Amino acid sequence: MTRGDSQGETALADALPALISVDWGTSSFRAYLSNASGHPLDVIPEGAGALALQQGEHEAYIAGRLEAWRARYPGLPVVASGMVGARQGWLEAPYVACPAGAAEIAAATVTAPGGVRILPGMSCLDARGAPDVMRGEETQIIGAGGDGIFVLPGTHSKWARVEGGRIVSFATYMTGEVFAVLKTHSVLGRMMTPAREGVGFSRGLEAARGLEHPGDLLHAAFMARTFGLFGTIEPDQLAEYLSGLLIGAEILAGARGDRQATVIGAPDLSARYAKAGAHLGVNMSPAAENCATLGQIEALKRLGVL
Amino acid sequence: MTRGDSQGETALADALPALISVDWGTSSFRAYLSNASGHPLDVIPEGAGALALQQGEHEAYIAGRLEAWRARYPGLPVVASGMVGARQGWLEAPYVACPAGAAEIAAATVTAPGGVRILPGMSCLDARGAPDVMRGEETQIIGAGGDGIFVLPGTHSKWARVEGGRIVSFATYMTGEVFAVLKTHSVLGRMMTPAREGVGFSRGLEAARGLEHPGDLLHAAFMARTFGLFGTIEPDQLAEYLSGLLIGAEILAGARGDRQATVIGAPDLSARYAKAGAHLGVNMSPAAENCATLGQIEALKRLGVL
Repeated sequence: MTRGDSQGETALADALPALISVDWGTSSFRAYLSNASGHPLDVIPEGAGALALQQGEHEAYIAGRLEAWRARYPGLPVVASGMVGARQGWLEAPYVACPAGAAEIAAATVTAPGGVRILPGMSCLDARGAPDVMRGEETQIIGAGGDGIFVLPGTHSKWARVEGGRIVSFATYMTGEVFAVLKTHSVLGRMMTPAREGVGFSRGLEAARGLEHPGDLLHAAFMARTFGLFGTIEPDQLAEYLSGLLIGAEILAGARGDRQATVIGAPDLSARYAKAGAHLGVNMSPAAENCATLGQIEALKRLGVL
Repeated sequence: MTRGDSQGETALADALPALISVDWGTSSFRAYLSNASGHPLDVIPEGAGALALQQGEHEAYIAGRLEAWRARYPGLPVVASGMVGARQGWLEAPYVACPAGAAEIAAATVTAPGGVRILPGMSCLDARGAPDVMRGEETQIIGAGGDGIFVLPGTHSKWARVEGGRIVSFATYMTGEVFAVLKTHSVLGRMMTPAREGVGFSRGLEAARGLEHPGDLLHAAFMARTFGLFGTIEPDQLAEYLSGLLIGAEILAGARGDRQATVIGAPDLSARYAKAGAHLGVNMSPAAENCATLGQIEALKRLGVL
């Protein structure tokens, strides 16, 4: 085989759909017509979340959404991860327990009507025996590849440690939700005006670094009010202060002294975490955007489907 | 003077009104017809909060509430503490800065129409220069008397350190409000059923003791969901867990290694903190119930009014 042939074959394989990859979360639906390398050839960017549909509606819904692709490329495997596999989703794929990797995820995959393979979520117990769970993030982490610390920032941020290609532990930090409820429903939001770029975020990160006792977080959060009362921080920086405080506290707790992590998430939020990490001495590099598809491919390979 | 005479005079003094003491907070109004020792001879248990009234309404409101007492005992000094002295209250009594005691409070007292003396609030800067404030609590702390650590648990708990009869520092922990907004507005409240006595509270206290990094609080709070998902804690214990976690974290941060504190507050909440403190090795003894009046008396004495 000449070099030219090889390049030609690669180009051909890259252009060929190999699977339909569905990222089906609580309130979002995205589907990718993907080649064997996880590169999207076509995208359905939005749809109804797995928990936005009633029980019994999922089969017809996904069939409708994927109809054109399946008609054009019959026989492609369809794989979905996320809350679609929760008890209150389409078809339950019970959690696999940490430590676990692609092999354990593959083994716990369930097949829904229409041949849709639904990947399981993952559970773990922390050092004190407290349980934690995730659905969808485990697939993205496996897809990101490599060992180390992986962060999925958001409403309920996940911090996971991967060793030998398997997730050995993870923990949820409800950073985004705490920020949102404090901003919207507590006294802290009253003096906040719409946020703009400024010193608030780094002031919050500094406050996070200065926390001595865990309960100090309950004090430092209140500063989003007193800084406003005293004019120490401008009204349009108060939400940024609170965001920096909470994200900073999360990063320092999640990294647990490590100085390197991989961030999996939307570009804006990932950049915000990277900025916070840089300030706090934790280098946070972005993962590939198609982690979910890449993780699904790993599972399908273990199942012999790809 | 014989012993009998002395006892008779004391009994007479105890029965004589010496001041009208008003505890006028954001959303509450309580007035005491008090003797010189701070003992209430009569009580007006409720009324409109200082911030529930519009600007300009306070003078007529308090005159109306106190009319019967002032008609019967003309010339009694009237003193008020709490949010009534805030900028958005009746008449601003600007904050006195820590360290401060009865003398500084007295010096910063303002006199409103009708001769009502309004005591100031107190401000302080923490080690990092972040400001904090209170209004009303400083008067209770001075009234409680003695040196040491004083706690006023609640929506915005205050922890103050008193040395030589003066408040040298204090900090606010927004424990009660964080509990309320998480229970009412976050995912944590969804599985909670009405709380009853049980293991949840001490499970929460144990979790608080186990926190390593400040940001771990954002993880341990999320356990109020996962403990419910896994059936580790009964639904009627999930709110208790969250309460124990937050109160425990507050106590460990507020006490900062000290093992003795005085609690000023309503009996139920004080008992809850005392229980938490006992679990965590911090002995919390209750203050007298009439701390506010006692503190006001200290200020009036410095003013030569009593």
